Amino acid sequence: MIGLDDLADFYARYAECLDDGRLEDWPGFFTETCLYRIVPRENWDNNLPLATVHAESRGMLQDRVGALAKAMLFAPRYYRRFFANTRIVSRDGDAVKVRQNVLAVQTPIDKPSSILLSGAAHDVVVRDGGVLLLKERIVVYDSEMIPNSLVYPV
Amino acid sequence: MIGLDDLADFYARYAECLDDGRLEDWPGFFTETCLYRIVPRENWDNNLPLATVHAESRGMLQDRVGALAKAMLFAPRYYRRFFANTRIVSRDGDAVKVRQNVLAVQTPIDKPSSILLSGAAHDVVVRDGGVLLLKERIVVYDSEMIPNSLVYPV
Amino acid sequence: MIGLDDLADFYARYAECLDDGRLEDWPGFFTETCLYRIVPRENWDNNLPLATVHAESRGMLQDRVGALAKAMLFAPRYYRRFFANTRIVSRDGDAVKVRQNVLAVQTPIDKPSSILLSGAAHDVVVRDGGVLLLKERIVVYDSEMIPNSLVYPV
Repeated sequence: MIGLDDLADFYARYAECLDDGRLEDWPGFFTETCLYRIVPRENWDNNLPLATVHAESRGMLQDRVGALAKAMLFAPRYYRRFFANTRIVSRDGDAVKVRQNVLAVQTPIDKPSSILLSGAAHDVVVRDGGVLLLKERIVVYDSEMIPNSLVYPV
Repeated sequence: MIGLDDLADFYARYAECLDDGRLEDWPGFFTETCLYRIVPRENWDNNLPLATVHAESRGMLQDRVGALAKAMLFAPRYYRRFFANTRIVSRDGDAVKVRQNVLAVQTPIDKPSSILLSGAAHDVVVRDGGVLLLKERIVVYDSEMIPNSLVYPV
Repeated sequence: MIGLDDLADFYARYAECLDDGRLEDWPGFFTETCLYRIVPRENWDNNLPLATVHAESRGMLQDRVGALAKAMLFAPRYYRRFFANTRIVSRDGDAVKVRQNVLAVQTPIDKPSSILLSGAAHDVVVRDGGVLLLKERIVVYDSEMIPNSLVYPV
């Protein structure tokens, strides 16, 4: 049974992968068929379908990584993710619904750090052959602006 | 006995309630007779009695929620809470003294996110008929300014 | 065996010590012979030896505290640390390698809070006579600027 300690380890490794810029490893945290969305809060609260990012498979996430590698060349900066208030919302067999708050901090090379994104993730985590994987990750961010840099995964 | 996992679940639900704007449910996280205070760091460090917010019962918290609902209409923005470094300081029977750091982030509709409050909470959590409740929550914030928006719960 | 709950308690007390300004107690969180470094991300990523801060013993940390006490008089402000994504990377006997993200927030007396440092800590924690101690703490911060205030411990 997936417990809070398992999730703490899983999400720490997920964040490290992205924080370290190992984007090519990121799709490996998801199941082959999956749902990854980044959604503005207003759309989420009003059940509007529009998302800033939408992917339904590991392959789509891999395509995304390719596009990102190019975009990163133009605005060199570091991103770092802070997960807080992680909670198991419910269980369904071996799957758990998880919610957590997400703070993404950006640090341009020559400027102070600032908040890129403040939001919540609504996830489904499953155990697949001994490892945990994301079957679903929907990140709802508190803004009605769509920052360009949000193309970068959280 | 109340453990760290119980507290993680409790504080995550507490934050979700406020982050989602379900203010009317917030007093339900406290015992009927309780202490809720928001105190500037300087007052806390010098044992000065003055608080930015002071309430001693669930009823007083409910009154507060009514006033807040009106205030929110004038400055639409999202607030989100990040709890970190949560620690059981001591135990007294079924009650635990808890300390944690609190970061409250605000996101106005048309501006980037920024830090509203950086501080520490000094709490007493009790178990009451199977659920955890706050008997005491004193949030000490690192500022000598009193932001207006601090009327919003943390 | 050192578990996640032990580490949560240890790091919360470590942060409290610094957040409360009890600098004189800070070296007590380290083993007598230790390694404490603060390193810019670029140097870390490229294996460059230069560090912003470097200390190899509790005595060197104590010297540092003396220098800091004077520096603090000139720029009164509060610092607060938020640790997230804490993970046990590996075990070696009774020692654990730990990684975590670190957000340090500064609050000048008359200004809003802002991010001082966003980074990751790469630590080695050992158990020594019933208590946990840091044998190593290397804080890598996401910036190529070296803020003056970084002389303050994280």
